[in-house]
Amino acid sequence: MKQVITFGEIMMRLSPPLNQRLGQASSLDVTYGGGDANVAAGLAHLGVPAAHVGCFPDNAVGQAAAQHFRGHGVDMQHCVFRGERLGLYFLEVGASLRASRIVYDRADSAFANLQPNWFAWDKILQDAGWLHWTGITPAISAAAAQATGEAIAAARHRGLTVSADVNYRRNLWQYGQRAQDVMPALVAGCDLVVCTEGDAEDLFGIRPEPGTENSFVSMSEQLQARFPTIKQVIATRRDTQSASHERIKGIAYSAGAYHETDFFDINPVVDRIGGGDSFISGFIYGQLTGLALPAALAFATAASALKHTIVGDINLVTAAEVEHIVAGNTSGRLLR
Amino acid sequence: MKQVITFGEIMMRLSPPLNQRLGQASSLDVTYGGGDANVAAGLAHLGVPAAHVGCFPDNAVGQAAAQHFRGHGVDMQHCVFRGERLGLYFLEVGASLRASRIVYDRADSAFANLQPNWFAWDKILQDAGWLHWTGITPAISAAAAQATGEAIAAARHRGLTVSADVNYRRNLWQYGQRAQDVMPALVAGCDLVVCTEGDAEDLFGIRPEPGTENSFVSMSEQLQARFPTIKQVIATRRDTQSASHERIKGIAYSAGAYHETDFFDINPVVDRIGGGDSFISGFIYGQLTGLALPAALAFATAASALKHTIVGDINLVTAAEVEHIVAGNTSGRLLR
Amino acid sequence: MKQVITFGEIMMRLSPPLNQRLGQASSLDVTYGGGDANVAAGLAHLGVPAAHVGCFPDNAVGQAAAQHFRGHGVDMQHCVFRGERLGLYFLEVGASLRASRIVYDRADSAFANLQPNWFAWDKILQDAGWLHWTGITPAISAAAAQATGEAIAAARHRGLTVSADVNYRRNLWQYGQRAQDVMPALVAGCDLVVCTEGDAEDLFGIRPEPGTENSFVSMSEQLQARFPTIKQVIATRRDTQSASHERIKGIAYSAGAYHETDFFDINPVVDRIGGGDSFISGFIYGQLTGLALPAALAFATAASALKHTIVGDINLVTAAEVEHIVAGNTSGRLLR
Amino acid sequence: MKQVITFGEIMMRLSPPLNQRLGQASSLDVTYGGGDANVAAGLAHLGVPAAHVGCFPDNAVGQAAAQHFRGHGVDMQHCVFRGERLGLYFLEVGASLRASRIVYDRADSAFANLQPNWFAWDKILQDAGWLHWTGITPAISAAAAQATGEAIAAARHRGLTVSADVNYRRNLWQYGQRAQDVMPALVAGCDLVVCTEGDAEDLFGIRPEPGTENSFVSMSEQLQARFPTIKQVIATRRDTQSASHERIKGIAYSAGAYHETDFFDINPVVDRIGGGDSFISGFIYGQLTGLALPAALAFATAASALKHTIVGDINLVTAAEVEHIVAGNTSGRLLR
Amino acid sequence: MKQVITFGEIMMRLSPPLNQRLGQASSLDVTYGGGDANVAAGLAHLGVPAAHVGCFPDNAVGQAAAQHFRGHGVDMQHCVFRGERLGLYFLEVGASLRASRIVYDRADSAFANLQPNWFAWDKILQDAGWLHWTGITPAISAAAAQATGEAIAAARHRGLTVSADVNYRRNLWQYGQRAQDVMPALVAGCDLVVCTEGDAEDLFGIRPEPGTENSFVSMSEQLQARFPTIKQVIATRRDTQSASHERIKGIAYSAGAYHETDFFDINPVVDRIGGGDSFISGFIYGQLTGLALPAALAFATAASALKHTIVGDINLVTAAEVEHIVAGNTSGRLLR
Amino acid sequence: MKQVITFGEIMMRLSPPLNQRLGQASSLDVTYGGGDANVAAGLAHLGVPAAHVGCFPDNAVGQAAAQHFRGHGVDMQHCVFRGERLGLYFLEVGASLRASRIVYDRADSAFANLQPNWFAWDKILQDAGWLHWTGITPAISAAAAQATGEAIAAARHRGLTVSADVNYRRNLWQYGQRAQDVMPALVAGCDLVVCTEGDAEDLFGIRPEPGTENSFVSMSEQLQARFPTIKQVIATRRDTQSASHERIKGIAYSAGAYHETDFFDINPVVDRIGGGDSFISGFIYGQLTGLALPAALAFATAASALKHTIVGDINLVTAAEVEHIVAGNTSGRLLR
Repeated sequence: MKQVITFGEIMMRLSPPLNQRLGQASSLDVTYGGGDANVAAGLAHLGVPAAHVGCFPDNAVGQAAAQHFRGHGVDMQHCVFRGERLGLYFLEVGASLRASRIVYDRADSAFANLQPNWFAWDKILQDAGWLHWTGITPAISAAAAQATGEAIAAARHRGLTVSADVNYRRNLWQYGQRAQDVMPALVAGCDLVVCTEGDAEDLFGIRPEPGTENSFVSMSEQLQARFPTIKQVIATRRDTQSASHERIKGIAYSAGAYHETDFFDINPVVDRIGGGDSFISGFIYGQLTGLALPAALAFATAASALKHTIVGDINLVTAAEVEHIVAGNTSGRLLR
Repeated sequence: MKQVITFGEIMMRLSPPLNQRLGQASSLDVTYGGGDANVAAGLAHLGVPAAHVGCFPDNAVGQAAAQHFRGHGVDMQHCVFRGERLGLYFLEVGASLRASRIVYDRADSAFANLQPNWFAWDKILQDAGWLHWTGITPAISAAAAQATGEAIAAARHRGLTVSADVNYRRNLWQYGQRAQDVMPALVAGCDLVVCTEGDAEDLFGIRPEPGTENSFVSMSEQLQARFPTIKQVIATRRDTQSASHERIKGIAYSAGAYHETDFFDINPVVDRIGGGDSFISGFIYGQLTGLALPAALAFATAASALKHTIVGDINLVTAAEVEHIVAGNTSGRLLR
Repeated sequence: MKQVITFGEIMMRLSPPLNQRLGQASSLDVTYGGGDANVAAGLAHLGVPAAHVGCFPDNAVGQAAAQHFRGHGVDMQHCVFRGERLGLYFLEVGASLRASRIVYDRADSAFANLQPNWFAWDKILQDAGWLHWTGITPAISAAAAQATGEAIAAARHRGLTVSADVNYRRNLWQYGQRAQDVMPALVAGCDLVVCTEGDAEDLFGIRPEPGTENSFVSMSEQLQARFPTIKQVIATRRDTQSASHERIKGIAYSAGAYHETDFFDINPVVDRIGGGDSFISGFIYGQLTGLALPAALAFATAASALKHTIVGDINLVTAAEVEHIVAGNTSGRLLR
Repeated sequence: MKQVITFGEIMMRLSPPLNQRLGQASSLDVTYGGGDANVAAGLAHLGVPAAHVGCFPDNAVGQAAAQHFRGHGVDMQHCVFRGERLGLYFLEVGASLRASRIVYDRADSAFANLQPNWFAWDKILQDAGWLHWTGITPAISAAAAQATGEAIAAARHRGLTVSADVNYRRNLWQYGQRAQDVMPALVAGCDLVVCTEGDAEDLFGIRPEPGTENSFVSMSEQLQARFPTIKQVIATRRDTQSASHERIKGIAYSAGAYHETDFFDINPVVDRIGGGDSFISGFIYGQLTGLALPAALAFATAASALKHTIVGDINLVTAAEVEHIVAGNTSGRLLR
Repeated sequence: MKQVITFGEIMMRLSPPLNQRLGQASSLDVTYGGGDANVAAGLAHLGVPAAHVGCFPDNAVGQAAAQHFRGHGVDMQHCVFRGERLGLYFLEVGASLRASRIVYDRADSAFANLQPNWFAWDKILQDAGWLHWTGITPAISAAAAQATGEAIAAARHRGLTVSADVNYRRNLWQYGQRAQDVMPALVAGCDLVVCTEGDAEDLFGIRPEPGTENSFVSMSEQLQARFPTIKQVIATRRDTQSASHERIKGIAYSAGAYHETDFFDINPVVDRIGGGDSFISGFIYGQLTGLALPAALAFATAASALKHTIVGDINLVTAAEVEHIVAGNTSGRLLR
Repeated sequence: MKQVITFGEIMMRLSPPLNQRLGQASSLDVTYGGGDANVAAGLAHLGVPAAHVGCFPDNAVGQAAAQHFRGHGVDMQHCVFRGERLGLYFLEVGASLRASRIVYDRADSAFANLQPNWFAWDKILQDAGWLHWTGITPAISAAAAQATGEAIAAARHRGLTVSADVNYRRNLWQYGQRAQDVMPALVAGCDLVVCTEGDAEDLFGIRPEPGTENSFVSMSEQLQARFPTIKQVIATRRDTQSASHERIKGIAYSAGAYHETDFFDINPVVDRIGGGDSFISGFIYGQLTGLALPAALAFATAASALKHTIVGDINLVTAAEVEHIVAGNTSGRLLR
């Protein structure tokens, strides 16, 4: 199987243990993650060769972040170690009606200060079959946006499949360009996009029809009309009961047809960070292993549901474990 | 805003981590709390200036307890450091159908042995606008009861609002006087009381009419008839599903009218100690910031619901966080 | 009250903290347990004198295992310290739809290599009133099966009550004999058996009639027909919602009558290992203290429900705590 | 080998982890210990049957303390569970030039409130060969002093060896009698005493001659002259370099001769609580196994040196491990 | 006693537990500190009223930092909550020949972006008797340098004593001005400076004579010649044996005379961060309590030595504990 | 730089935290290591490409072990996942005069049961420049010995440098062949050996002359005489003061000359496991980067000294950090 390549920022995540608030913590749990790198790591655990491309400060903090992903089986050989700091964020884990809360401290990171010419995409992509990126990356800096564009162009040129998690975070776009001006050109190079109606409206001015299913279909059709390379649009629907209780299902539009899974019930949620990323790595896995769309969507959604029970950003599950859930084994009976 | 003053005992709380039982713990989580001091600390986190008056042994244990509350923004300058020991208790945290369980070891504490003349109430209250006490304090020793009475008298004399959490704990009253003989004179000095029908019956011989709403209204009317200074009576109703799942609502009687909130669902409960205290600090906050009674009651109940998700006795939430819940955001969606 | 004696292997249990997976753990929680020894320890906590007979490597690991049970009040004087290694297993604790998962590493343990003549059953049983064993023990080695048989014979000869948890684990039987050939002779010496319809069919070729209640009655009747010493058959029914949410009830067949309890709801489950063992120790307690069968069954099931809220294999609850649940106090209200 | 019986109070010990001070600890390490019970537990680990007699509150805290010693192999069947609280103390562990510091909270414990008639010494001592007590016990209450006297009398009557660790702690004697009035009658029943020149002077008015060796010999001679049952006097000499670096040697006077060991160097000290108790259990072990006095003294001192490297009050070492040190293996080479 | 005011940046400090390296840590110990705020907190623990002036981001991280110092008794009412991020650093704690290592991540902090006019120095200093600052503050930004100058000017105008820890960190000065141009005007307003020969040479071009004592005297004389307000110059000498073993002495030049203490031996070092700050708070304590210079120097040095045994940046010791060391009790004998 | 390949068993290492003994631990620190794999991981941290060849059970435990080394930058692509169990050992960490103690539980591991034909050495070694193995590997099973021989033969055939850590552990050789019969043929294929006089005598019957230096030279000459491929013999000398205090120096014999370094003092020792392995990886690094022998020896010894301050088996240091020590910076001054 050919490698999947992801590109984006990896941050340090610092959280007070259990449900403590920051002011009462005398230690912080530390892990590392990023919306794109999590996809790579999830794929590696599913058995798909994956490499991540990013940029880290050349110090012990940057090395620790890279080591973390290397341990999870991600090929980090194309990463650049240059710059001053690793972006980081503080996560207070909520419970029940108290939401989890993130305080970002990511400005001016090594990744934000990357130079596009540090990445020789033709070489990086030479053995790869798939490129995945998220809308967070072009939001970070003009250079990051440019590098994303170059990666996509190189990927298309070499015939790779390109996927994007549109993921519009308004308050990230601070460097002087508007998402609405940057994103269309990037999405125009994609085969598969993860996109919600809200993001489609905010970024591309698409107005979906009302109705849960209708709105997704209508949005997908308009996306395809505008960006003809897009073959599939997927998303998750969350029916969030509380910070501790989540229900998710997967939806997809492909070849003119709408698909959805049943809801998966996750109670309690152990860690919901990376839930969307694991949906994507599950779907890519399905595509690469030749699953039909409904099966790929079921696999992706089951993978995402499992992720909610895993500590950290990365989905530490095997393909067999996901298939066990897909087969209906959701009652959690002890496995000896 | 003028200071709120609380008076009472602070204890060390020792609990086995997670859901361990005492016999299997090799370390005990330690924190500090008290029914009145928790109100002061909760107010400080809501932005209300608050001071606590208490008594601690003059050793590292007493200093640690005071430091804890000082860190939470409570003015501890009127506290007295004299005596031998800090009262303490062991808390085994239950789960599901196993109840949490407290073993007290509080006899003969520095607070129990206080001398009333250690507290110059006129000076302590000079910049204050509110005095709050709980029925636990006069239960501890005759001297504590006397000091409570002196504080209330000084507060009334200076025109402060006085509130009490009646909180009758039968087995605390060990020093030779009966709660039924001591409490009426103290409650007679209050503007606001937190009281349940059971406590009203046990302490004041009040027989409420049957019916959930009726009984509270009837009790409140009788309380006001007997103690004419009382303007408001408030309480929480608990619909406890298990040690891990609590439902609460707030109820109030004021100006001849009954008010109640909807139930808040808390599942899982992270830490229910201090749940009632945070209801009170929320209500005082509402009064001090000029909320109408229904809004104050909603704020108080939301604050209490949030407290059940916070580790320790103290409600580590801002006013904005409580208002977020009051506004209906109880689904716990991640806040970035 | 006379001693209850159990015989079987004790293993070290290693689990990543909280819900971590093995690959992310930098420490493992360690405890010790075994299906029969857990019964002894549970009985000791209920106030019943209990001794366990087993075999441990003569090193620090074996001593630690024995010390663990000694601390819980189990008489370990008949244990033998000989051999090379303690069997162990790794437990990843699941949550919600992710099942807990066990990786065994128990081959060639000190217990598996025991010699039957190391155990002088007549002496061991001389002050005892009850012998309990599980179907795991004869599965481990021919010698362990032989020793089990000798223990049962000695017990019957001395007039003890004998109970067995049939507990058929197919993949444990590796030493060259079939469970179907070994177990009948052992079960033939029992007064009380814990057995499910599945195990009865697999081990003894019994075909129960369909229907939840019918099938158990039918199986029990056939068991009694085949093994006339059996007076009571008991079991638990699990209605597993997820790895975090369990519902259990107890069922029994005795003197021609079927009994069952209501379901107990356990949400969240803290630790389900040892849930069945605590059901048995609860039932033995009931028998030894003269409870009628329905009361004994209720006690056993409540004890098992409580176990699901206790960390570790052993049911750290007193008889009073179980009775508190039996009396209907399952809402988990704080006990001061 | 006959049982060694100890009598005295067991307390809960709470210490901030590592070298934290109390005010910064969010958890406290918890263990249990007592000057006499530590001797029993140390003996149990050396393979000598030992029982401890004490008194615990009949609650989860008292049970946890007893369970701790039971796990270490001490027979706790003669302990009484009656009373309100377990004595406890806080230990801040120093380092280097900062001394470790203890804050006691032991007043009014279950042990302090014991009734002498709760202990049927003739029955307790019936299978025993040795009774050991410390000067802390008669300091706690008049009843504890009386019970100590009764135990000693019963032991002498039955022909047991009696040993005492004189251990004069001035500020413990609070109940109205003076150590100088109480201790002589108790020491008069002993065969072996652990005593320093300072304690001998304070308690018995003995003025030793100057000089390290002379003073001990002179004190011992005067002790024997006054208390003719005494056959041996032993002690340790500490040459304390810092809270982290201790040097100890053992000294003894027996049959008119003075003995001493070389200094053992302990750097770093892991935990020095119980260092003296392990010296005593080591010496008793030596006596019971027939070692000549110099060998017993070497064993006792090596055992004590090892204790300084063990976490907690109890000396978790086997006889073989002590002998390994006695044989000169103090360089700490890895043992595989 | 009048308040001591400090001004400067407080950072979050994140360190892997024990001696781990960053790449192997799954949690980081978190505390907060700053070269000037540590002086304030140390003074508060010594019983001197102290306030710190600083600037924090208005988020949970900034609040946690302020809460930390508030808990240690520092008056934080003049602090400003504005800006985006809290500066932070990672500390790997070395051992033996491996040095501890700091990775800074402090650029662009809330403090670095402060506006001088946020601080009303006349009001802040109105009840104060002493102002202390360090050379780190003017190194951070032009605005911070300007605010430092304004604080010093206001302090001199109001007759406060002003002290400075010159503390030249070359690589901190990044904002376009040279320390050599900024520092002289600031030092010109000081009564007491902490300064080493190296810093005097780098900053002020002072060339001390050779020789340990000579060089300090010569530097001090030249400092006084150049900055006539300076009355005392103090410093510590470190004779560092390893990351785990430190020897320090205090030196001072005052009224034409040189003073020094003996070396204090610290082995092991628990935490050396804040060692210099505690020397200063000890010296200020001495000055404010009227100690003669040698006594103040001894107190300061003993305080600093103790700090090396305390976890975190802040010297959690009482004046009595420092005096205990000054009196020669450095052998660390257990204090009961 | 060409890859260095190592071959051997990786085990799980379980140790009670801090200095606890096994019986008191409620959690065990877990890491993974092996005498040869540690060399590979140390090289990876020094910047040398390294791959390890081994065999793991195909379960979560085996995956965790492999993930650990992958995270440290070791290429694990040639590892085989087949078999039942991962070998493991328990390590009690001693202190001062108490030695650290290992209890092995490694029999019948996946590695012990490997089949030589699972390893295609020509392919594995095709891009490599160096092969390293230890005497532990051929001690494990006949198959492991055979595979070692095949690896050496393939390496010689391809012109790789071959090194061996002779490391004779008598009680490991259990499978029916004698080390004396197996090792000579393997050592005969080596260019560099790590060997002590004791091992040379035990394995090869070599009798070195007396005298520290003489004996090593004499042994080395005899080794070279017997095994003419050997060009260099190296070793460390330990002057062990206690479990907490180690002194080491490096010695070497090469081209007829003897070399040695000064002693490095390590006090305290944080973790001495892997100290020898890091000496070897340091020496290989020196060879591969063209250092002269004295410089390579200094580098190797400094690396080993640093390893004693690092938690776990693997030497987490960069080449720059080692060079910092080689340059004489052993006083551990804080690096900012």
